[in-house]
Amino acid sequence: MTSAKNENRVKRLRPVRSSRVRLSKFALHLFEAWAKLEQPTTDSRVVIAVSGGADSTALLLAFDELIKAERLALDVVVAHLDHGLRKKTGKEDAQWVKELTRVLGHKVELGKANVGRRAKNTADNLEQAARLARYAFLARVAKRNKAQVVLTAHTMNDQAETVLLRLLRGSGADGLSGIAPVRSLDSKSDLLLVRPLITWAKRTDTESHCRHQGVEFRQDEMNHDERFARVRVRQTLVPLLQSFNGKVIESLTRTADLLREDIGVLNEKAATLLQQAESRAPENKSGTSAPLLNVEVLARAPAALRRRALRQWIAAQRGDLRGLEMVHLLAVEKLLGGNRGGRVAELPGGASVLRQRGQLKLRTGKG
Amino acid sequence: MTSAKNENRVKRLRPVRSSRVRLSKFALHLFEAWAKLEQPTTDSRVVIAVSGGADSTALLLAFDELIKAERLALDVVVAHLDHGLRKKTGKEDAQWVKELTRVLGHKVELGKANVGRRAKNTADNLEQAARLARYAFLARVAKRNKAQVVLTAHTMNDQAETVLLRLLRGSGADGLSGIAPVRSLDSKSDLLLVRPLITWAKRTDTESHCRHQGVEFRQDEMNHDERFARVRVRQTLVPLLQSFNGKVIESLTRTADLLREDIGVLNEKAATLLQQAESRAPENKSGTSAPLLNVEVLARAPAALRRRALRQWIAAQRGDLRGLEMVHLLAVEKLLGGNRGGRVAELPGGASVLRQRGQLKLRTGKG
Repeated sequence: MTSAKNENRVKRLRPVRSSRVRLSKFALHLFEAWAKLEQPTTDSRVVIAVSGGADSTALLLAFDELIKAERLALDVVVAHLDHGLRKKTGKEDAQWVKELTRVLGHKVELGKANVGRRAKNTADNLEQAARLARYAFLARVAKRNKAQVVLTAHTMNDQAETVLLRLLRGSGADGLSGIAPVRSLDSKSDLLLVRPLITWAKRTDTESHCRHQGVEFRQDEMNHDERFARVRVRQTLVPLLQSFNGKVIESLTRTADLLREDIGVLNEKAATLLQQAESRAPENKSGTSAPLLNVEVLARAPAALRRRALRQWIAAQRGDLRGLEMVHLLAVEKLLGGNRGGRVAELPGGASVLRQRGQLKLRTGKG
Repeated sequence: MTSAKNENRVKRLRPVRSSRVRLSKFALHLFEAWAKLEQPTTDSRVVIAVSGGADSTALLLAFDELIKAERLALDVVVAHLDHGLRKKTGKEDAQWVKELTRVLGHKVELGKANVGRRAKNTADNLEQAARLARYAFLARVAKRNKAQVVLTAHTMNDQAETVLLRLLRGSGADGLSGIAPVRSLDSKSDLLLVRPLITWAKRTDTESHCRHQGVEFRQDEMNHDERFARVRVRQTLVPLLQSFNGKVIESLTRTADLLREDIGVLNEKAATLLQQAESRAPENKSGTSAPLLNVEVLARAPAALRRRALRQWIAAQRGDLRGLEMVHLLAVEKLLGGNRGGRVAELPGGASVLRQRGQLKLRTGKG
């Protein structure tokens, strides 16, 4: 493997063919999932996020196995971020990932963040700060290496925990649909974030794959930190649910899958509603102004579509939905009642929605 | 109150008006919920299911309060079923409900079932058998008394428990949308089943309302029976969830509400899809034959709509969906792939779906 030598060189192997090498079950499953997600099997570079825990180590090992068996002709860059939450083990983890990647013959990029300080300086909690730091790092590594895809090793257990955390917050279908197997990494680039384990692998599978491969994975620094609600969900809630249903991880994953199908349809119908409700501001017909929304069209629509259309409208203009809660959407919906104009609903971040002459207008904080 | 004297006489009081009587908070909330659910305030007879527990006792007391304050001009029939699960307390509960109803001046109907035997004779578990016996009894009482509406005292706690039980089974949006505030009691009549407490009252509210009214409610026989998964959810799972989020009952209720809005839209779009896919069997153009479904139309549709359309198609012909699981829908969906015909998917109860000349055909077990 020479990928570490030349960043920009993408290996061009023969097209995928059945190989004489006997693949591990885990790698075969991964290959099937990768194909189902319609991801490239040749001529592409991928970044794999590796903490050193069982999940990401198993993902890296299996991906490496598929490359060496010539089932995938992809270039791998391993990315590891030290979150700066545990001084000693953080350094050791980074060293361990570096050494494993060297042995396998791939390129590695190590990064370091101070998530504790980051959380203090922002309104984010430790968990959010860690996630934001991690994804920002992965995006930087991907851009630097001209990779098209970033892989994370989320499993069905992560999916189940996410569904439960969202349920605890009273989420609707969008939240309960959990972690998407494929999504854009950010709104500014074409980078894809892919989770090839999430639909089929459990934590027990990644642990046993590492053991079968004779690799002693690290204990991920985040996995036992009781400051994280996710860790408490994993350690207390999931075991209780398993006492009701031994296959509850699978059940929760199925729920997320079904809801993802539902919101696919609902978001599509909401986009149609948004088109019907949109008109351009009359003072600017060039199409560059923010679209106004027809109050009557929105008021007639079912709440399930109206709220999603409003979210899409706000996201398109603000670039994201950070801080937007149900309470804000309810405030905007209140503007739709009756005939009076000139009323305002506040959004987070200083933005607001104004009702004027039968139309809704979004004012961003900056404008 | 004379309703007990003459079943068929519906009291005609003056139209609802603000009364001089000061209503309890609980009764006021109930009145608001009743209006929101667009239920009749005059010239109607309702059956209230009363076990004697806090929830149903509070509902009866508050309904009675609204009638005596002339906010509602409705005739009440109280229905109580002894499930035959606890010999001594079952009889005592029935006596207690009879006496309370007599004091309030309403009519009461007592019934008795042997749910244990019923469960043994069917494939149903104790919980399902109890529910089926209860709703069959309520339907009989309603028909006998020419009532239009049956009320049950389900609370937000019941809603939360239902969402959790469905989640444990891996349900999608339809299951997680929980208990509907208003639905048909059965497919054969116009009887409505209404839960006027479910959107706003918690168990603590019903208990404190009974106490404020000086009524010592009974311990519902079902509420402590550990044979019921619901009881275990209530006693172990809900308290653990509350340690994460003190308002988790409200959160779970909100999730159910949001999902109910979603499935309203999805079922409507699925009905449109079903219409597009349907054609009558050519050998019988009278419209009495079962509709066939066009394979191509279904195959093109998103799974979230296709599966709901298939459920509607099966329900319309079988009268219900008993025993129909995701695995059956997946088997029917498999028929849609490729070009081959002449294949069959089995449904529960001896029914099956056949693919023939580009169409799906349902064979009921009887036909």
